[in-house]
Amino acid sequence: MALESIFARRSIRAYTGEPVSHEAITQILEAGMAAPSSNNRKPWHFVVIRDRATLTKLAEAHPHGKMLSEAAAAIAVCGDTTISPDFWVQDCSAATENMLIAVAALGLGAVWLGGHPREDRVSAIRAVLGIPAHAGVLCLISIGHPGEKKEPRTQYDPKRIHDEKW
Amino acid sequence: MALESIFARRSIRAYTGEPVSHEAITQILEAGMAAPSSNNRKPWHFVVIRDRATLTKLAEAHPHGKMLSEAAAAIAVCGDTTISPDFWVQDCSAATENMLIAVAALGLGAVWLGGHPREDRVSAIRAVLGIPAHAGVLCLISIGHPGEKKEPRTQYDPKRIHDEKW
Repeated sequence: MALESIFARRSIRAYTGEPVSHEAITQILEAGMAAPSSNNRKPWHFVVIRDRATLTKLAEAHPHGKMLSEAAAAIAVCGDTTISPDFWVQDCSAATENMLIAVAALGLGAVWLGGHPREDRVSAIRAVLGIPAHAGVLCLISIGHPGEKKEPRTQYDPKRIHDEKW
Repeated sequence: MALESIFARRSIRAYTGEPVSHEAITQILEAGMAAPSSNNRKPWHFVVIRDRATLTKLAEAHPHGKMLSEAAAAIAVCGDTTISPDFWVQDCSAATENMLIAVAALGLGAVWLGGHPREDRVSAIRAVLGIPAHAGVLCLISIGHPGEKKEPRTQYDPKRIHDEKW
């Protein structure tokens, strides 16, 4: 049941060091590209990183990215701002969330490391990966086999629900 | 398997008219509030609408919202911009995507109707639902029992994948 993987998705920042298969990365990308997008414009691009030297550079490029130096892979989620200037952030966020749920469904672990709109992070990632100026950098996803265990959970809070009107 | 519901999630704009249970709406909201958020700030708020007169007003408030007048329910996804000025859009997008996958997993149908940053849409929705100025209006989700069938799919495109560098 998909709801289980939604609740099982937790931010996993420790990894075993075991590699992640190419097949798993492809399934994760298939999930990302199954996301909805405004006017179905699909502004997303994905840079897949497995090279240890590049992962280490990314770990240094992001203030909360230390775990990247131990990750099996990372995916930089980018959006073509010329295709969808108003909605690329939302479309790429939906794609990112799909990928995080797919990661959980596959028994892997991942964490979303925010980029845009923090320009210092974006320009550092852009420099490492050669991302062109017309592409926004939404985030990095750090991926590996989980080296920590977190329980499934919602954070359901009835105070955040408004009945018929705010 | 969660991947199935990720691929089964399609934009469903026609509904049978059958009501959606309170239990299902609660499960959908539980999924939404299981999303990750920047610094775990959880900026989200959800307005749940079932009243037919209000659904009809929302159908008029959104340029692509005609189906709302036939929907069993709608959820307006809002973000407290004072809690997370930089990341509420991304956090609420992740919550929205979780809810859309939950909808698919429950055998229901839904569509994401974009609000922010289109100010005309945001102010029209704000007026109908009494949403305060400090809350951004990310989108409306129109929900019902599916009155149209769409096949599961990815939109996987290898041209959007970059190996190690853009």
